[in-house]
Amino acid sequence: MPRQIDQAARLAAIEDAVVSIAADAGFEAVTIRAVAKRVGASTSVVTHYVGSREELLCNAVRRELDSRRAEADAAARALDGQAALRAVVEWAVLSPTERSHRFWLALVLNAAGQPTLRGELNRFNQWWNQRIEQLLHEAGSADPAKEADLVSLFVDGIVVSGFDAGQPWTPERRTKLLDAVWATLSF
Amino acid sequence: MPRQIDQAARLAAIEDAVVSIAADAGFEAVTIRAVAKRVGASTSVVTHYVGSREELLCNAVRRELDSRRAEADAAARALDGQAALRAVVEWAVLSPTERSHRFWLALVLNAAGQPTLRGELNRFNQWWNQRIEQLLHEAGSADPAKEADLVSLFVDGIVVSGFDAGQPWTPERRTKLLDAVWATLSF
Repeated sequence: MPRQIDQAARLAAIEDAVVSIAADAGFEAVTIRAVAKRVGASTSVVTHYVGSREELLCNAVRRELDSRRAEADAAARALDGQAALRAVVEWAVLSPTERSHRFWLALVLNAAGQPTLRGELNRFNQWWNQRIEQLLHEAGSADPAKEADLVSLFVDGIVVSGFDAGQPWTPERRTKLLDAVWATLSF
Repeated sequence: MPRQIDQAARLAAIEDAVVSIAADAGFEAVTIRAVAKRVGASTSVVTHYVGSREELLCNAVRRELDSRRAEADAAARALDGQAALRAVVEWAVLSPTERSHRFWLALVLNAAGQPTLRGELNRFNQWWNQRIEQLLHEAGSADPAKEADLVSLFVDGIVVSGFDAGQPWTPERRTKLLDAVWATLSF
């Protein structure tokens, strides 16, 4: 394939490796050496693409979170009001894979000590909070700020409950709880 | 001090070190060597008290979770019905330290790959679920199983939200959300 595409594919493979290692074993385990091993290349190939571990983390985390944003936007496309809000929340609690939940939880847990991770998580959360408040506003909520907190708590709770219990709660159980939370919203 | 008390104090210090290391850096970082370093002793002192890393983890996690249970029971003492339930939930979301939340989240995230941790977490969750369902039943709930799920989701969500946001939500913000969840319960 053309060299430019080859380079993009190689970089994508490197960033995928970062996400996989973080999801499997936490961010402490993400080293240039571990990434090289995962993609089957030498460490010098990895450092050819990224200048430092910090840059590698930053780019990989941003790419992963950006793809989650794109999925959320796609879920709400062509919908409005309550239907758009419901589609985004259902996307968040019903569709992601265990791997993406593990990645997110590792990110949340590790962000405290690592400014790079903290920055990327803040950037994502700012988008999420604005998006949910805007959707609540458009759906007719009387208190979008408080109800955005409730929706976020619900989503966080669902993600953690899967690990807490050893396996994700069934879709039926999650949907029943979503309906209960939904009934509390002021529209 | 008498030798028996001395031994109990030493063992408690070793188990505290396990909890601190897990909260700071995750369970992967809990090794006999790291624990010895943290308590300022040689590894042979640590292995004099515990036979293996597995035994050390099991004992330390159980002791920590048992002390959380004792706190929850103390919060509800001399109360009944809704007041007892409210006291336990407020204890869970308003009183614990960041360290105990970090420990719990590390436990949840690491339980998947480590049967010892999974076993201790299951033991705690079984107690928690029964306790919350029983309190809901006594408070007059029409559907204790579903509402116990809602209460647990809320507690999990509050714990995670603090790390997600970089610092715990203010007690006022948490109390406002607790009131919103409370209003959905059928009593």
